[in-house]
Amino acid sequence: MEYTKFMADRVKTMKGSAIREMFKRMADPEIISLAGGNPASELFPGDELSKIAGKILMTNPTLALQYGTTDGYPKMKDCARKRAEKVNSVGENDEILIMTGANQGIDLTAKAVLNKGDKVIVESPSFIGSLNAFRTYEAELVGVTVEADGMNMDELEETLKNTDGVKMIYTIPTFQNPTGCTMSLEKRKRMLEIASKYDVLILEDNPYGDLRFSGEDVPTIKSLDTEDRVVYAGSFSKILSPGMRLGYIVAPAPLAEKIEMLKQVNDVHTPMITQLMCVEFMKKYDIDKYIAKNRELYGKKCAAMVSAMEKYFPQGKVKWVVPEGGIFLWCECPTIEDITPIVDKCLEKKVAIVPGSNFATDIYAPSNMFRLNYSSATIENIEEGVRRLGEVLTEML
Amino acid sequence: MEYTKFMADRVKTMKGSAIREMFKRMADPEIISLAGGNPASELFPGDELSKIAGKILMTNPTLALQYGTTDGYPKMKDCARKRAEKVNSVGENDEILIMTGANQGIDLTAKAVLNKGDKVIVESPSFIGSLNAFRTYEAELVGVTVEADGMNMDELEETLKNTDGVKMIYTIPTFQNPTGCTMSLEKRKRMLEIASKYDVLILEDNPYGDLRFSGEDVPTIKSLDTEDRVVYAGSFSKILSPGMRLGYIVAPAPLAEKIEMLKQVNDVHTPMITQLMCVEFMKKYDIDKYIAKNRELYGKKCAAMVSAMEKYFPQGKVKWVVPEGGIFLWCECPTIEDITPIVDKCLEKKVAIVPGSNFATDIYAPSNMFRLNYSSATIENIEEGVRRLGEVLTEML
Repeated sequence: MEYTKFMADRVKTMKGSAIREMFKRMADPEIISLAGGNPASELFPGDELSKIAGKILMTNPTLALQYGTTDGYPKMKDCARKRAEKVNSVGENDEILIMTGANQGIDLTAKAVLNKGDKVIVESPSFIGSLNAFRTYEAELVGVTVEADGMNMDELEETLKNTDGVKMIYTIPTFQNPTGCTMSLEKRKRMLEIASKYDVLILEDNPYGDLRFSGEDVPTIKSLDTEDRVVYAGSFSKILSPGMRLGYIVAPAPLAEKIEMLKQVNDVHTPMITQLMCVEFMKKYDIDKYIAKNRELYGKKCAAMVSAMEKYFPQGKVKWVVPEGGIFLWCECPTIEDITPIVDKCLEKKVAIVPGSNFATDIYAPSNMFRLNYSSATIENIEEGVRRLGEVLTEML
Repeated sequence: MEYTKFMADRVKTMKGSAIREMFKRMADPEIISLAGGNPASELFPGDELSKIAGKILMTNPTLALQYGTTDGYPKMKDCARKRAEKVNSVGENDEILIMTGANQGIDLTAKAVLNKGDKVIVESPSFIGSLNAFRTYEAELVGVTVEADGMNMDELEETLKNTDGVKMIYTIPTFQNPTGCTMSLEKRKRMLEIASKYDVLILEDNPYGDLRFSGEDVPTIKSLDTEDRVVYAGSFSKILSPGMRLGYIVAPAPLAEKIEMLKQVNDVHTPMITQLMCVEFMKKYDIDKYIAKNRELYGKKCAAMVSAMEKYFPQGKVKWVVPEGGIFLWCECPTIEDITPIVDKCLEKKVAIVPGSNFATDIYAPSNMFRLNYSSATIENIEEGVRRLGEVLTEML
């Protein structure tokens, strides 16, 4: 049977995440992956969660196994609220919705907001999962350059001045994916002014905000918002467990109501057992202490990666900005046009990196950039992976 | 701030499920709910799953807590395959995708297939969650009458003959929600012939198929499909636990590929711990024995409900068909136009039922029908609930 005629326009030209495709190829145990976005698994609180899950299912099976409410288990909503309040990111007109991962929150916010042809301003480069979510609603993506201190605000204003039909700005202001860059306080304020002037929403995605290992915290955009213009997406993936798929959305009530309805027809509600595990973990343990351990580890791993890059990368041929937190490091090779041959050669040499084109609004345009991840691999493998990568770069640049 | 201008057309007029709204009002412990679709919680295997979850998280925390693959954990895909193969519902050109509940599978299948204005033929009445999912892609719903032996096939053919732009027929052929009716084998074959003649897809939703307590099994439509025209949605919600949110889609590879991409941008993957719990449960225990216990219980509960209806309902004023399985019983009050005042009066008398309008393609048209659920309440509460309902019906019919 021929299926093309049955396919919606939105999926006809859709391309999956090359990163997740790459995951499939990485069954080869000899490959060192600097490609994914996995948090460090060596610190996962398996023993604690084992006891917690065992006890919940033993003492309260009905709560854990029966249907729950779409907006989230009330105590889980309290947990999400606590995390959001810690960064002053819940306003009095906001509602909190528990999501099966923050990605679902971004997908459903986009679904609530975007008609075909509507425009979304995104950082260029940005997180492919969100860009692809916007694409599935047939929105047009308009990229604005990311600099070391975040999105270029003059370019943002110029873009808004010259572009009709923009509904939303999507930003990961802190330890951005893929650049690792953090938007300055001044730029955050300016973004709010510009969004107000041109009357567009801001969707602030903050999965990495807790993972600072140097420098000073910068307030979230949501915390500076006096107009209820910002929808805030938070995540437990990088501070507890990504496999549990727990995130949340903080949104003004009229939008939250629509997002909740869309979640109702999507997965009805987030699984109960993962919500209950998170609630009990936060009740019994100090999650901030657990996060602090991760932060320390990521600081060490980042330093190890940077030191290996300085040692093994061909001098002056690769540019990067050292991040102050998060899990990613972004590299540019100014002397070439297209990183693809290098990425392929790297896979031959058993090290995986992600080409920059994956994070672009135009995924077919060549890119001379690549993304490295330092949270997932061990320090030993980071050094060996960067050594292999350095060999390829030295040979090919 | 005024948010209407930021809302996508799809959500502007969207109405949430009145059933789930009703759930919120049911905090009152005196209310007997015959309204929901909850499976019986008294048989949930809490002890077994407690030991399983505890052990998995203790012995394999990385697998349970790290990111997984979008298509599903391989052994969970095997489990889903086993369930689908049991009813001959996996073809050689099919792929299996694990979903965070079958509802997600229906939502994302719709997203992969439906453009704005495309038409979906649905049973009238049908499951509100799916109807609302189709509505969010701005599809038009065209209802075809459900009879005691399933959809009226002459009406289906007539509808297809006279309607342009139909892409898909959505059906719950076995123990349908809300009618409890099962489509005959003859009608299943005829549906495939008609779908082939007019070249449309069939989305077969089969969450209740394992719950037969009388009569003979009827083959799934998927098992009769020789053209790879049927997408099949299966669920663990009614045979293990709805709160775990585990379902699956069996779809021809070209469609499955698109659905997988849409899942990638939706929730990335189904939580790992729930998948692993299901895998271990099916490895250690005979899930068919567990299902048999549920089936027996539902048979008893259904009989108790029917017997109470015969005792307490005003004679000759309410019509129903006794189901052979599943969890729902559908009632019609031919002497009235609109059931709403009765439903409201029932809530006053502390018994909850669902008005038929919830399951209609036109939710604003009055309905003289209501749905009862017998899986969730205890037998004692079923009798008392039907007694209260009978009082209201006797007074108001």
